[in-house]
Amino acid sequence: MKKTDILIIGGSAAGLVAALTAKSNYTDKDVTVIRKEEIVMIPCGIPYVYGTTGTTNKNILPDEGLKKLGVNIIVDEVTSIDKENKVCTIKNSDNLQYDKLIIATGSTPTVPKWLKGTELKNVFTIPKNKVYLDEMQSMLEGCKKIVTIGAGFIGVELSDELNKLGKEVVLVEKLPHILGLAFDAEVAVEAEALIKSRGVKLLTGIGVKEILGEDKVSGVLLENGEKIEADAVVLSIGYRPNVKLAQEAGLEINDMGFIIADQYRRTRDKDIFAIGDCSEKRDFITGKLSGIMLASTACTEARVAGMNLYKLSTVKTFLGTIGIYSTAIHETGFAAAGLTEAIAKKEGFEVVTGCFTGIDRHPGHIEDTHKQMVKLIASKDSGIILGGEIVGGKSAGELINVIGFIIQGKMTIADLLTAQIGTHPMLTASPAGYPLIKAAEVVAKKLK
Amino acid sequence: MKKTDILIIGGSAAGLVAALTAKSNYTDKDVTVIRKEEIVMIPCGIPYVYGTTGTTNKNILPDEGLKKLGVNIIVDEVTSIDKENKVCTIKNSDNLQYDKLIIATGSTPTVPKWLKGTELKNVFTIPKNKVYLDEMQSMLEGCKKIVTIGAGFIGVELSDELNKLGKEVVLVEKLPHILGLAFDAEVAVEAEALIKSRGVKLLTGIGVKEILGEDKVSGVLLENGEKIEADAVVLSIGYRPNVKLAQEAGLEINDMGFIIADQYRRTRDKDIFAIGDCSEKRDFITGKLSGIMLASTACTEARVAGMNLYKLSTVKTFLGTIGIYSTAIHETGFAAAGLTEAIAKKEGFEVVTGCFTGIDRHPGHIEDTHKQMVKLIASKDSGIILGGEIVGGKSAGELINVIGFIIQGKMTIADLLTAQIGTHPMLTASPAGYPLIKAAEVVAKKLK
Repeated sequence: MKKTDILIIGGSAAGLVAALTAKSNYTDKDVTVIRKEEIVMIPCGIPYVYGTTGTTNKNILPDEGLKKLGVNIIVDEVTSIDKENKVCTIKNSDNLQYDKLIIATGSTPTVPKWLKGTELKNVFTIPKNKVYLDEMQSMLEGCKKIVTIGAGFIGVELSDELNKLGKEVVLVEKLPHILGLAFDAEVAVEAEALIKSRGVKLLTGIGVKEILGEDKVSGVLLENGEKIEADAVVLSIGYRPNVKLAQEAGLEINDMGFIIADQYRRTRDKDIFAIGDCSEKRDFITGKLSGIMLASTACTEARVAGMNLYKLSTVKTFLGTIGIYSTAIHETGFAAAGLTEAIAKKEGFEVVTGCFTGIDRHPGHIEDTHKQMVKLIASKDSGIILGGEIVGGKSAGELINVIGFIIQGKMTIADLLTAQIGTHPMLTASPAGYPLIKAAEVVAKKLK
Repeated sequence: MKKTDILIIGGSAAGLVAALTAKSNYTDKDVTVIRKEEIVMIPCGIPYVYGTTGTTNKNILPDEGLKKLGVNIIVDEVTSIDKENKVCTIKNSDNLQYDKLIIATGSTPTVPKWLKGTELKNVFTIPKNKVYLDEMQSMLEGCKKIVTIGAGFIGVELSDELNKLGKEVVLVEKLPHILGLAFDAEVAVEAEALIKSRGVKLLTGIGVKEILGEDKVSGVLLENGEKIEADAVVLSIGYRPNVKLAQEAGLEINDMGFIIADQYRRTRDKDIFAIGDCSEKRDFITGKLSGIMLASTACTEARVAGMNLYKLSTVKTFLGTIGIYSTAIHETGFAAAGLTEAIAKKEGFEVVTGCFTGIDRHPGHIEDTHKQMVKLIASKDSGIILGGEIVGGKSAGELINVIGFIIQGKMTIADLLTAQIGTHPMLTASPAGYPLIKAAEVVAKKLK
């Protein structure tokens, strides 16, 4: 029987980073990645294939890094895990024995069973699968009217991309606002106004009852009885963890359907780790089980697993998911980290919030100046920052990482009031009017 | 005699922010700013007046914020402080009694006494003075050949701006590299290559012996005997703190010439605070006296003073200057925080560094993708991050603030290896190849 020291099942972001980390940390070990896909997609780049990069060939997660380090890549499918004997059965090749196993089997788009018509032609989901995405792209070419169902990040991004191509796009969201899990309403409405101004038709607060059509999709029936014509429908209502393999192997699955894993990313089997979309997440702040799936979080979990495989480190742990999101609609960046005000309150925190709107360059006469709004959510008892939201220019993408580190460091409003920042006319807001600090001042005033 | 509760001397960034903070925190107090300038310049925007914004009128620090809060503004000059009686003498108006005084008198460009020819016509410095800057702008109009002496941030930025106008610019720096206090040599050379490629002639590692000319400047004589023709010379070799007023009032001045001030920004007189360029700085990491002058640091000191005027808070203190710098040369951002490797070693730290070069978008096919290089300097014994340097696109301006908070939070390499970040194709590097984390991995490998 063939043998490898460290076997990683899954080759997307989590699997890739786990393999790189494992091989870098344990250079004398033989590391193998086994994945189904010949060519792997950059997950967050998938929506942008449609209107920006133009082809999945420009959205490939390269194998060079793995090859350079000497990681083996097998394109095949693990069909079962025998954890007693530490052996994986593989569809088209010999069994493979492992010493340590990392499960990074990812997630699959949700197709709700209650929704009629999902089997129709031209009803799509957005899996991380090049062959599927290519076919979808070619089929969408002939479609003029497209309905996107579900306005999370992928739904919003894809709608904007299809709109760029001149399609008539209707984005339908059951919740009152788009991006509703990441942003409070007052921020979400800004994204809504922007995407509408760009030509996407938006229907919020209304669910889809049925996808209509015979053989091929012809439209969508809404809960209120309204019908929308459609040449194609894209479901972007979420993803479910791929845990069948783990479950069949007898690994424990939590109430939300994820493979249970601890702060070192160990499952209940000491030689099996689980990372990424398929693995258990707990919220960094609430400690509760969480369903957040993010490539960036997956990469962190992958690093943690990769480092702890043979030797645990108390300072190299994953202490819970902080949802850190960012997206761009045209030139406007939207970003969020931690809890929204609504979620924090619902969870039982007494919160104080502060919001400040300034500009992201100084003076405002600089060419690419954008409005920059920062909202902070702080815990009233300690002043600890629970969350932040930003609308700005493209620098919002790194500014949210400032807030991310503030949350990870359990920093407080006082830390922000006394924080030192770097500023520059062409790159940031002014030091006197830096929205992050000004928002903290608003919170401080309310805390008095 | 007229009376105000809180008197702030100086109206630049530090004075402005101190006034805003004082009035916001002590709403029932009467707050007065007294300053010499009718119109105040945005300090970091000054170089950009010449080639980008085009006029000082587009670089004005507005008074609206002060006026809206009800802060009094007096345009006049304090000629003496009587700290026993808590009274300021004012040049053109009545004496003014204060309860608390904040000195924010700033700094003045250094004109070395040993340098011959500084009195010649068309020899300029860069003070924060609109009238002077306007006159300089109009006089530079007729000049073709300009020599800039001193390649700190202002010298580099101004040289690039004058080059944009079609001037023949020679930038002379005595140190081996430009921006040498903020960047290690391997980063500085990238800035050097870029500014040279844009047309600025660069002479490093050579000092100026004399400015030549009769009445009007005609050239510069270098230490090696070489002469450079010049229609104008701009001195950008540093600033000295304005402490005459404080010194004459009997306030203590430190060995580097700054007004002594503690972590609450109190001078040795309990009712007098000192902030900004005129006030004592200690390095956050070394604890040593420091000469760093930054508008952003000044704003932090101003906030700290403003909050602590009547009531000290142990969590609202200024614990030492972290130089956090950023600049842009065309589309390339350069940024640094904390100690460089060279300075850290000189100070006696045993350091481990890591450098990683990636890109600031993902995939690299995204339109405005730039190379992004991150260098981290960590303390070997603790893994605590001492400094970081970045070359990237414009997002470098906020990414350096990520590193700034990492330094302020005394975070370690392990914190970075397990950090969660937000990423997006249009806004940041990829989660698998995020240069900040990858640089930490390089350090970690060396620490083994």
